[in-house]
Amino acid sequence: MRPYVVINIAMSADGKISTRERRQVRISGAQDVTRVDRLKAGCDAIMVGIGTVLADDPSLTVKSEECRQYRRKQGWDDHPIRIVVDSSGSTPPDASILHKGEGKRVVAVSGRADAAKISLLEKKATIIVAGKDEVDLAVLMDELGDMGVHRIMVEGGGTLIAGLMKAGLVNEIYTFIGNIIIGGKDAPTITDGDGFIRESAFIRLTLLEALRIDNGILLHWKVDSPDQKKE
Amino acid sequence: MRPYVVINIAMSADGKISTRERRQVRISGAQDVTRVDRLKAGCDAIMVGIGTVLADDPSLTVKSEECRQYRRKQGWDDHPIRIVVDSSGSTPPDASILHKGEGKRVVAVSGRADAAKISLLEKKATIIVAGKDEVDLAVLMDELGDMGVHRIMVEGGGTLIAGLMKAGLVNEIYTFIGNIIIGGKDAPTITDGDGFIRESAFIRLTLLEALRIDNGILLHWKVDSPDQKKE
Repeated sequence: MRPYVVINIAMSADGKISTRERRQVRISGAQDVTRVDRLKAGCDAIMVGIGTVLADDPSLTVKSEECRQYRRKQGWDDHPIRIVVDSSGSTPPDASILHKGEGKRVVAVSGRADAAKISLLEKKATIIVAGKDEVDLAVLMDELGDMGVHRIMVEGGGTLIAGLMKAGLVNEIYTFIGNIIIGGKDAPTITDGDGFIRESAFIRLTLLEALRIDNGILLHWKVDSPDQKKE
Repeated sequence: MRPYVVINIAMSADGKISTRERRQVRISGAQDVTRVDRLKAGCDAIMVGIGTVLADDPSLTVKSEECRQYRRKQGWDDHPIRIVVDSSGSTPPDASILHKGEGKRVVAVSGRADAAKISLLEKKATIIVAGKDEVDLAVLMDELGDMGVHRIMVEGGGTLIAGLMKAGLVNEIYTFIGNIIIGGKDAPTITDGDGFIRESAFIRLTLLEALRIDNGILLHWKVDSPDQKKE
């Protein structure tokens, strides 16, 4: 069974996730950091795209001792499995996501990934090959399900999120909207990629909750009948 | 005195105002249409950029008889002054904004606008020349203030909004966030233009209100100390 996929991402009031230089910026505050840590602690795995690894070098660990204790009480590793979607196998072998904190790693590559790169990465991570030129996200999710991954939190970036949306693989979306304007035609949004043209192809959501925190607002959306979206 | 500027715009949950083809899409519903009509009815003028005129050909009239009656009781025209920011004077002489509904029009051009185009447009609109190559928005606002325009609603698009933000001319922002994902790296957002790079340059907002309507949510932001923003 495919995992339940929850996207979590912060954007500015004008819908940007970073500047046009793709530099990470602080959008939320302490309350949201705590919320995200708890959300993360409740998931089997955390997924990001290679662009996010290269831009931000995140470790994606569970930050608070309280949340790690909760996980240990469940008999889980301190940190969820960390997954990089990386079609060409370009994750730097010294990336924080492969080194910081105990726990399992998965690097998902496509058939075009270089064998030499893969052999370096597989010292640190389980390698899943899915798709020919790009990672086939549906196949990847099937494999992750088979590995016992039932709940995944996706932290970005926009290319991965757009791919998951288009493939009908997203179940819920949390967007924290911060009290800033970043601007910029070329500043990234939560959905890179081609997008939808026909209104009938738009993904429809239901707003489950809206919560004012940290001078901004957290929107919690459910995706209505996720399924294969085609243009 | 410069007018008080209120931006009003609808975006998808992923921050897009239309598809990558810039085709207008329905993001909000009946409740929001009523809200926008009332907001419009309370303003002296409605402003859009030339891109919006060319893409959507809006009339920007007050739609409901109730709101027009309210305006007549105040001794006002049925419709606010309609203003196009149009550096090159490219507003089509048959554009709806110049013809639909009674009331005044202003076309703001820059020094590079063609004299022949201006002479056609001035049959239908007051022409304000502000700025050399592009409309100087601060100068335009000063002129509008001198004309007795105290409150302006801006309906878009992203280029005009970005220009107003950068010039520190925005006082409030209403964003209605609809329950759809449009996607697309090249789909327009509320802020086109260059955007800000340094965090100290970001425009800071205060969330005044969040209201669930039409399966989405209306966010009402106040701009903290609007002033000249420079990169």
